[in-house]
Amino acid sequence: MEAAYQELRRRLGVVTDLNTAAELLFWDQTVMMPPTGARVRAGQLETIQRLAHEHAVDDEVGRLLEQLRPLEESLPYDSDEASLIRVARHDWEKARRVPPELAAEITRVASEAMEAWVQARAASDFESFRPWLERTLELKRRYVHCFEADGDPYDLLLDDYEPGMRTEEVRAVFDRLREVLPGLIDAAASDEQDAFLSGPFPEDAQLGLSLELLRAWGFTEDSWRLDRTIHPFCSSSGSHDIRLTTRYAEDDLTSLFTAMHEMGHGLYEHGVADSLEGTPLGTGCSSALHESQSRLWENVVGRSLPFWRWFHPRAQAAFPDVLGDVDVEQLHRAVNRVRRSFIRVDADEATYGLHIILRFELEQELLFGDLAVADLPEAWNARFREFMGVDVPEDRLGVLQDVHWSSGSFGYFPTYQLGNVVSVQIWERVREALPGIDAQLEQGEFGPLAAWLEEHVYRHGRKFTPRELLERVVGGPIDPEPYIRYLESKFGSAVAA
Amino acid sequence: MEAAYQELRRRLGVVTDLNTAAELLFWDQTVMMPPTGARVRAGQLETIQRLAHEHAVDDEVGRLLEQLRPLEESLPYDSDEASLIRVARHDWEKARRVPPELAAEITRVASEAMEAWVQARAASDFESFRPWLERTLELKRRYVHCFEADGDPYDLLLDDYEPGMRTEEVRAVFDRLREVLPGLIDAAASDEQDAFLSGPFPEDAQLGLSLELLRAWGFTEDSWRLDRTIHPFCSSSGSHDIRLTTRYAEDDLTSLFTAMHEMGHGLYEHGVADSLEGTPLGTGCSSALHESQSRLWENVVGRSLPFWRWFHPRAQAAFPDVLGDVDVEQLHRAVNRVRRSFIRVDADEATYGLHIILRFELEQELLFGDLAVADLPEAWNARFREFMGVDVPEDRLGVLQDVHWSSGSFGYFPTYQLGNVVSVQIWERVREALPGIDAQLEQGEFGPLAAWLEEHVYRHGRKFTPRELLERVVGGPIDPEPYIRYLESKFGSAVAA
Repeated sequence: MEAAYQELRRRLGVVTDLNTAAELLFWDQTVMMPPTGARVRAGQLETIQRLAHEHAVDDEVGRLLEQLRPLEESLPYDSDEASLIRVARHDWEKARRVPPELAAEITRVASEAMEAWVQARAASDFESFRPWLERTLELKRRYVHCFEADGDPYDLLLDDYEPGMRTEEVRAVFDRLREVLPGLIDAAASDEQDAFLSGPFPEDAQLGLSLELLRAWGFTEDSWRLDRTIHPFCSSSGSHDIRLTTRYAEDDLTSLFTAMHEMGHGLYEHGVADSLEGTPLGTGCSSALHESQSRLWENVVGRSLPFWRWFHPRAQAAFPDVLGDVDVEQLHRAVNRVRRSFIRVDADEATYGLHIILRFELEQELLFGDLAVADLPEAWNARFREFMGVDVPEDRLGVLQDVHWSSGSFGYFPTYQLGNVVSVQIWERVREALPGIDAQLEQGEFGPLAAWLEEHVYRHGRKFTPRELLERVVGGPIDPEPYIRYLESKFGSAVAA
Repeated sequence: MEAAYQELRRRLGVVTDLNTAAELLFWDQTVMMPPTGARVRAGQLETIQRLAHEHAVDDEVGRLLEQLRPLEESLPYDSDEASLIRVARHDWEKARRVPPELAAEITRVASEAMEAWVQARAASDFESFRPWLERTLELKRRYVHCFEADGDPYDLLLDDYEPGMRTEEVRAVFDRLREVLPGLIDAAASDEQDAFLSGPFPEDAQLGLSLELLRAWGFTEDSWRLDRTIHPFCSSSGSHDIRLTTRYAEDDLTSLFTAMHEMGHGLYEHGVADSLEGTPLGTGCSSALHESQSRLWENVVGRSLPFWRWFHPRAQAAFPDVLGDVDVEQLHRAVNRVRRSFIRVDADEATYGLHIILRFELEQELLFGDLAVADLPEAWNARFREFMGVDVPEDRLGVLQDVHWSSGSFGYFPTYQLGNVVSVQIWERVREALPGIDAQLEQGEFGPLAAWLEEHVYRHGRKFTPRELLERVVGGPIDPEPYIRYLESKFGSAVAA
């Protein structure tokens, strides 16, 4: 039995090595690679991903998983061994359902469709992207048909990012937000301009200030990197090689919040227990749980008044000409302004949810309802007007703004907002466990917070489903009320005042 | 037949993708990776290299190679298709001889022995490295025994770097150099110090000057990178993603010559025909041919007086305080000083050969003669005194200076000096083909030289053996006389004068 377990672990280790190598190749492509290297890199990635898939769905893995059932049942549910067998079985059964030819076609079309999307967005030309989106949707429906539908077919897509999450649960959370957010936005939205927020903020000073902040949160040169890219992301090859990326613009401070956001993802990966390294458990639990951590550090901490009491003098020192006369309340208010803007990634905490709910609805209608791709821009714009009360002037600022649909990532968008919701559920537990947390943030003491999150969330890696992990951490299922209380408290008084 | 050829190419493409991905992972490890990422990276590399080996020795590849004999014979010898089949057969037959367990053990021991060497060199403590070298030699002998010996067993090691090269050919070249070099060194060696050569040369100015030079030689940001590392090297994933590395010291100009050297390797890789991309032919022909190009650009061009007539004002502009009063002849003489120094990688053109011949002799005695590892430091120091007339003060400056033996790279050292020899054989052809080459170098016109080398050497990739390629380019076999003429002309008059 021990030999079978070691053999399973070895085989899953090969898959993990290939997947993390592919992640590194992608990081390099985005951050370091000279552009003419793209063709060879595409071939390397295709080869490595195909081999990873072949090894992942190998018959022998299935045989070992069967053989190891008695071991799994004899061990505690949360042991490394039982968890690895359990999660690997879920992965294996899911991966086996998809014929390799379909998986390969999905990968190939995604690559071409992304290229088409880049062009289409630049030209704000939806029509040129339409056939690619139609083909991508068709492939996604074929993907769904590989599985036995015993409920909403969208459940299967959600499961790729949020194992076990059901569409009806998401809908219940989003319906509740849909009731609350418009009123909150009406009350808080402001057209006031904070002139100091447009800089100039020299890039070197932004980098220096970002690093000062990240170091206070746990960034060290021996395990982390911070590089520049166009679309920021966090990449890792396990918990000891974490790579954050950000971008700088002289006329705003977005780079700071991007750095905080990616650092939240990085802290999660960095906190996964060493014993899970080199296995499929050695990464975060789900997209929403991951996003709960990027948002907890970026928003719940990074846009809070206690945090800014610590950070304000540092920001002033970095940008004395621009921020020298701006007091901490002004700055805190400025970085929390609510606006009805078009672009999701620039959205504030109050409006963000509506951007997501719109996508959640439209992608279901595209996939399984009667919304034709040709009618999508009109549907997008009508829905946006309904949600936000403003007209989208061009598709570049509307339906073409996000990469996700071009890459076939249907089911991903809702996890962003679920992450926001979960971030505050977890934060309420943090406040109970660390009653001095506000004072700690004001003092720049982030260690207790990071340690609590590592102990209760990060170290478990992918051992548990999102539902199981949430139950362990907050004692219940996903619940929008803490998040609503948080938004109402923030935008109903302190900031909007 | 066409289907079989496409299937062979596809399979070799997988091997190539894995090998180039491993090269990228190694580049990243050396240049970018946070240090604590090392353990996961070692696992990724081991997995990818093992998979590359498994795919390379697959039975089906052998079957296809047999099936494709008629196609190979029906096509011109230098066609892409016949060359791919021919070279792949050589690779396959060689790789099949080595049992996977031995290959894996060699890789594992090399990794550990290199670690031991790093420690041993830092402490100048040969004794701590001795058991690792003994084990490495034992494994190398077992490797040699996998093949049928029909000549000098060292031939098999040479063949890994210099396909088809025989030990007796190398010995003939080296014997001739052994006759000539000592007298040349006696005549040219100098203890004179050029104070201006110790700077200070600010690192930014070195980088700027290096890039100015590299751009004149063909470096463009869309296909190349230049980064900093401890042990400079050139890495590539095919001909459109070339990564040079160098290092900077404020008190010397070595970084310039390192950049030229690695650029020579890079130009070779960059010049390989696109039609060979993604195949085992899409890289340089051999270690010596590769080194002939790094040395041609670094030494034959980069230390020549015509080149310095172009480069001197640029160097003065970069370092006005240090070089403002140094005229071109002084500078040219300074960068060509001959000294009896201990470290191979710092050696000038006149003494370099002796450093190599010493290693060539000792590694054969260690592997197949009666030199015991315990007696190696003494043998090294005695041979060094015999060759150079100076005493090695400590093993750090002697037997422990190079990484090669720790990584099991026996048979590699001679290719460095063969590269020097070949560089001048090719240069004599260049001078015939481009009679205006000196004037071009003085004007900073490097395009005709680069184009000639691409046409005659680079574009062929790995289609030909070194012997075949040399026959095509210079019309004969390896020959030390052009190199000796070059050294005598250089160190007998212009510089030593």
